[in-house]
Amino acid sequence: MAERGRYDRASVFGILDDGFLCHLGFASSAQAIVVPTVYGRVDEIIYLHGAPANHALRRAAQNERVCLTVSLVDGLVLARSAFHHAVNYRSVMAFGVASEVSGLAEKRRGALAIVDHLLPGRTDDVRPPTDAELRATRVIRFEITEASAKVRSGGPRESPEDLRLENIWAGEIPLKMELGVPVVDDQGPVHARLPAYVSAFTERGIP
Amino acid sequence: MAERGRYDRASVFGILDDGFLCHLGFASSAQAIVVPTVYGRVDEIIYLHGAPANHALRRAAQNERVCLTVSLVDGLVLARSAFHHAVNYRSVMAFGVASEVSGLAEKRRGALAIVDHLLPGRTDDVRPPTDAELRATRVIRFEITEASAKVRSGGPRESPEDLRLENIWAGEIPLKMELGVPVVDDQGPVHARLPAYVSAFTERGIP
Repeated sequence: MAERGRYDRASVFGILDDGFLCHLGFASSAQAIVVPTVYGRVDEIIYLHGAPANHALRRAAQNERVCLTVSLVDGLVLARSAFHHAVNYRSVMAFGVASEVSGLAEKRRGALAIVDHLLPGRTDDVRPPTDAELRATRVIRFEITEASAKVRSGGPRESPEDLRLENIWAGEIPLKMELGVPVVDDQGPVHARLPAYVSAFTERGIP
Repeated sequence: MAERGRYDRASVFGILDDGFLCHLGFASSAQAIVVPTVYGRVDEIIYLHGAPANHALRRAAQNERVCLTVSLVDGLVLARSAFHHAVNYRSVMAFGVASEVSGLAEKRRGALAIVDHLLPGRTDDVRPPTDAELRATRVIRFEITEASAKVRSGGPRESPEDLRLENIWAGEIPLKMELGVPVVDDQGPVHARLPAYVSAFTERGIP
């Protein structure tokens, strides 16, 4: 029931792996900038990517210390008092150093980690990146040096007097990311069967 | 189909209103910090709140220029090439000045805006904040001076050669936030009926 911090690797990595977008924050002059972007994880390294024209990523990689935050919303908490309304969530704030990847082998590893983060197993099935594509991509390596997770779950926490209020409905409305029915892309041939790892993914659902 | 920027108020406010958590970024010394937090909007003012012990919010309010980003994930885009995988999303990056609210009237307005942002109409039904509660709450006012929205939708964008690949399933897997069945809080009396605005909200769903 408690809102609590967690510092173990399993909690931190678990939340990082369950998100689809992270929020990368960095300071550019005196201005903070928070960019939503896809990502992939290899142990304590997070990979991000973008077009060479992506100035935000270039600037992020020039900063010594950046912050990468992932948040998942699990429910709305309706209390009897306005004061104690909340959301249930899981989040990770990770701190570390961002740098641009120059070697093609690590660029490839990062790019594939991002694809497999979206959908595990996908990289075995698709046309892999060419050297030319990797050269034309900015890949950022973010090494986590410090991270903490925070999780809130359960119903409202209220004062004893408020718990006696009789006519106010209080509780939790759960929220969950649901996968819809896959929509085939008809710009090319459409006879490829939906792969087993896609159906397994949609059946398993999003944690 | 295009990934495009939007700068009109309706697009920016629409995305801000559809999120539950924002990511507030600020620079503390040379370190960027990105904090996920609930929020409410009154015209171009965003209100945030936290306990007085919430150092992140206190520091954010001391910064001249902060960035507040809201992102909503709408789908996974599976391309034939690893390179063109993406997510569909709607996001807003808002820039402005954050300051701490001291007057009780504006603190109340901000606190109620946050509750009604979670669930429209909720503040009419709950025990309102007392002056003592408001004094014991840090409320931050963030005035948007500049903002842009970015939206990606539709299937993969690939090169003509990749569109000829026959054996790779490509398309979009839609993702949507779904509301679950409300769970009543049994710490107090449980005979209050589920209010009409809650059932209307769960039936309407999350945009």
